[in-house]
Amino acid sequence: MRIVVDVCGADLGYQEVIKGALMPLEAGKDFTLVLSGPEEEIRRRIDPRDVDKYGIEFLNAEEVITNDEEPVAAIRNKKFSSMVVALRALRAGEVDGVLSTGSTGALLAGATLIIGRIKNIDRAALTILVPGISGPTVFLDVGANMDCSPKQLVQFARMGTSYAKFLFGKEEPSVGLLNIGSEETKGNKLTLETYRELNMSDLNFVGNVEPNDILDNDFDVVVCDGFSGNLVLKTIEGVADSIGLVLKESIKANPLTSLGGFLAKPAFRNLKKILNSDEVGAAPMLGAKKPVFKAHGSSDRYAIAKGIVNLIDFIQAGVIEEITKTVEEETY
Amino acid sequence: MRIVVDVCGADLGYQEVIKGALMPLEAGKDFTLVLSGPEEEIRRRIDPRDVDKYGIEFLNAEEVITNDEEPVAAIRNKKFSSMVVALRALRAGEVDGVLSTGSTGALLAGATLIIGRIKNIDRAALTILVPGISGPTVFLDVGANMDCSPKQLVQFARMGTSYAKFLFGKEEPSVGLLNIGSEETKGNKLTLETYRELNMSDLNFVGNVEPNDILDNDFDVVVCDGFSGNLVLKTIEGVADSIGLVLKESIKANPLTSLGGFLAKPAFRNLKKILNSDEVGAAPMLGAKKPVFKAHGSSDRYAIAKGIVNLIDFIQAGVIEEITKTVEEETY
Repeated sequence: MRIVVDVCGADLGYQEVIKGALMPLEAGKDFTLVLSGPEEEIRRRIDPRDVDKYGIEFLNAEEVITNDEEPVAAIRNKKFSSMVVALRALRAGEVDGVLSTGSTGALLAGATLIIGRIKNIDRAALTILVPGISGPTVFLDVGANMDCSPKQLVQFARMGTSYAKFLFGKEEPSVGLLNIGSEETKGNKLTLETYRELNMSDLNFVGNVEPNDILDNDFDVVVCDGFSGNLVLKTIEGVADSIGLVLKESIKANPLTSLGGFLAKPAFRNLKKILNSDEVGAAPMLGAKKPVFKAHGSSDRYAIAKGIVNLIDFIQAGVIEEITKTVEEETY
Repeated sequence: MRIVVDVCGADLGYQEVIKGALMPLEAGKDFTLVLSGPEEEIRRRIDPRDVDKYGIEFLNAEEVITNDEEPVAAIRNKKFSSMVVALRALRAGEVDGVLSTGSTGALLAGATLIIGRIKNIDRAALTILVPGISGPTVFLDVGANMDCSPKQLVQFARMGTSYAKFLFGKEEPSVGLLNIGSEETKGNKLTLETYRELNMSDLNFVGNVEPNDILDNDFDVVVCDGFSGNLVLKTIEGVADSIGLVLKESIKANPLTSLGGFLAKPAFRNLKKILNSDEVGAAPMLGAKKPVFKAHGSSDRYAIAKGIVNLIDFIQAGVIEEITKTVEEETY
């Protein structure tokens, strides 16, 4: 098993990604680590004895794709960027999976343009695990496809189901449709039509999901168009941030509340776990022919390490093969 | 000034609505209170001396429209419901405004079918004030119109601007477009096209707004289609609830965190203020020809009292006349 980790793009810098990438090796995980990025810079941050000991390899890449760049243009023009070099190695079969903390849009464009989509899948979807109170939910599309058709949402549901089978070990993961009400008659044109399509499918469709149900984790998979998904995701992050800010300031307001805040600290940590997407490591670009994982830009070493382990498990479980099979069996 | 308060539909029951409706009178606010609902039931809950003292009037209505009913059918069929009776009195010019805690959908349908829309307004919009960290933002549409055109969103922006002028006393309230990114190139077909239309308009359009900006209050008015608006609103409420629940349970987990939670209580109250839509009283159905205000179903007496004061101020400020004028000046 050979895994490329793109060291560029993380908010905390190369050092943190490299530290995280080494952790699974140090813990005895059996795989070959390939680091893509400026080789000299990377080597300067690793103990040469570790390079020898673990047989770490390098894909030298001097360019970096940033978050501000138009994704498709960036993938096309920056052929020597750490991301493109990693994806090309994956396409060539030189490695088995890619993990990157870089631009989400560029990684998705790269997964589509360089790796290609699974047959019968119209669009790849950006997939995340929403942590939630009693466990994570597979949530897609959270930002790749702005305007979707009902047929695409059903494909997302199929891909999400295969992924949830692997993640949660369930035979028939439940699928929900993100909507503004639980009743069948609620929603816009897209959700009304998608409800009917999902209801007629062989998936374990259990109905509409209101956004709060995602955090309560009543469903294994929740599908929506990328605009709605991204909106919900950004709202969750925004509310969590605002709450954090207000609480912090209100708690600092006087000595008693400060003491209270200090004593209640473990409770706040608990909260962070539920809202923090880093807790779930990284998530795949579902629909790509080969394993491409996106880790949060704000990932620390532990999130990177967890993401690599997720990726290796994903490859070993054959999730992409499962999706390919399911989609081929699709009846329409 | 004559105001009808629909006493049916609040989660806390008639008693709480009546208590709240009396509060502005007790505080010396000058208006005639008309209570719509089952007269006998209402009278049993008011001191007869108050009825005389304040000259309280009654619109007897034995039927109630519930939240489960299909809005348009409910408005058409329940002619003797507290809501329809109130709206008819408004249409007939017997009163100057209506406040109701009842079904949002039915109230909107009633505002459209019984009161009618302002000329040149295609659709009325459900408008709320999102409390936010440094003050409220006018946010519409939050659930009335599932699929919208760019033209409708521009109308929402016009109506929201007139409302924000009144609320915040600003000459040129800033208008934002709810979107998944701040760049002009971000979004789905609807937001991309609406961005261009708003940009060409005479409104003080300042660009795209990500959901977290709503809580930060960088904008006076934020517009979107009713599906997206409702999704964001439900997410805010869902996250706030989940956070509350998790914090409560984590705080109860041991004596030290319990003590901490107790000491930090004032900080949590602060938080509630920012997320709780009751803090802003009630909000109008913008686009209706006459003032129809919706108060949250969970409103307590203080929220009802505040809502009535909001409604009276709204009428006295001539917001609807202002909207009517602005929309007539519309250049396309």
